[in-house]
Amino acid sequence: MTEIARRLTSKGQATRDRIVVAAARLMLEYGVARTTIEDIQVAAGVSPSQLYHYFPGKDALVSAVIDHQATQALDVQQGCLERLDTIDSLGRWRDVMVGILTEMQCVGGCPLGSLASDLSDSDPVARTQLAAAFARWQELIRDGLSEMQERGELARDADPGNLAVAMLAAVQGGLLLSQVNRDPAPLRIAVDTMIDHLHALTRPAVP
Amino acid sequence: MTEIARRLTSKGQATRDRIVVAAARLMLEYGVARTTIEDIQVAAGVSPSQLYHYFPGKDALVSAVIDHQATQALDVQQGCLERLDTIDSLGRWRDVMVGILTEMQCVGGCPLGSLASDLSDSDPVARTQLAAAFARWQELIRDGLSEMQERGELARDADPGNLAVAMLAAVQGGLLLSQVNRDPAPLRIAVDTMIDHLHALTRPAVP
Repeated sequence: MTEIARRLTSKGQATRDRIVVAAARLMLEYGVARTTIEDIQVAAGVSPSQLYHYFPGKDALVSAVIDHQATQALDVQQGCLERLDTIDSLGRWRDVMVGILTEMQCVGGCPLGSLASDLSDSDPVARTQLAAAFARWQELIRDGLSEMQERGELARDADPGNLAVAMLAAVQGGLLLSQVNRDPAPLRIAVDTMIDHLHALTRPAVP
Repeated sequence: MTEIARRLTSKGQATRDRIVVAAARLMLEYGVARTTIEDIQVAAGVSPSQLYHYFPGKDALVSAVIDHQATQALDVQQGCLERLDTIDSLGRWRDVMVGILTEMQCVGGCPLGSLASDLSDSDPVARTQLAAAFARWQELIRDGLSEMQERGELARDADPGNLAVAMLAAVQGGLLLSQVNRDPAPLRIAVDTMIDHLHALTRPAVP
């Protein structure tokens, strides 16, 4: 969050949020390049000068949208599920993701993954911001797996860091295949396969 | 391939190919929306009327680029590796993909995956064409796993169809994470984890 955002009144914050949510929705549906400042202004129901007051240009909007989508993605894990530190919690996480995808009729794929595919090669600043968001996401998964390992439930020779990368890749690839096929099955299958793999590496909890 | 493409002379085919390769490169680097017909014309070194002779509009170019990228993606499997019907052949496939990615300095991610993320929600015709390309890719992987199962090397209760979905998701998600991190490691780790998983499901060949 920028210094400006921190100093906003609650009404100002609501207006800023409305602009970010509108921008996020349009960028997810049409891509960043196809989304104009004017589209965002109309969708958010604000005047050009209001929009400009919060966001001096498209780069600032893109940055705010990345922050917004990263928060949303991590909230699915942190808010709904606390910690991904048991096989059961990973199964619940999969259910939440498949539920959101089904509700969205598989439109949009992963909001963060779509931005990464859209911006990684054309916008180095956005790429760095996205890489940091994915790193935090990966860390959350890794921390849960590490806790399982510390409790003696995950095999000692398993590598929580690598397994977290593979799990995040399964989520991202599954979401992309679900998006292109308009079918939640690929996401479910990809994550389930990783859960099966983890299951094979788990041991009963040490009493 | 369209009827027009089939009737081209070899010189005409070379010009058409040059246009498709230029369009594919620009769309991969900048995204479809940011790539104009004029950019493609300049990059391919052809006149506007030449380009128009082969492609009456951007939709026709997008369709040709999808065909081109699908062929490239499947050639990596079919051309280099024949069949993915042993654990070793899957390892060689991973090496080829990681090699290409390293050579590209991780720019572009998966050409087919990038198009899928870019177009799935904005272009229903392109989405259908992309879904068909991914289905062929998935089938190739599944066929190799089915052969392993028929030879008795893959456990009888393993599901080659689901494992192929999970492997393709690992490839797509791994490529996306490699692209955003500018590091081939996520692709390698994601595919290796799936190979480890398959390894656990394999049995020695029946003599």
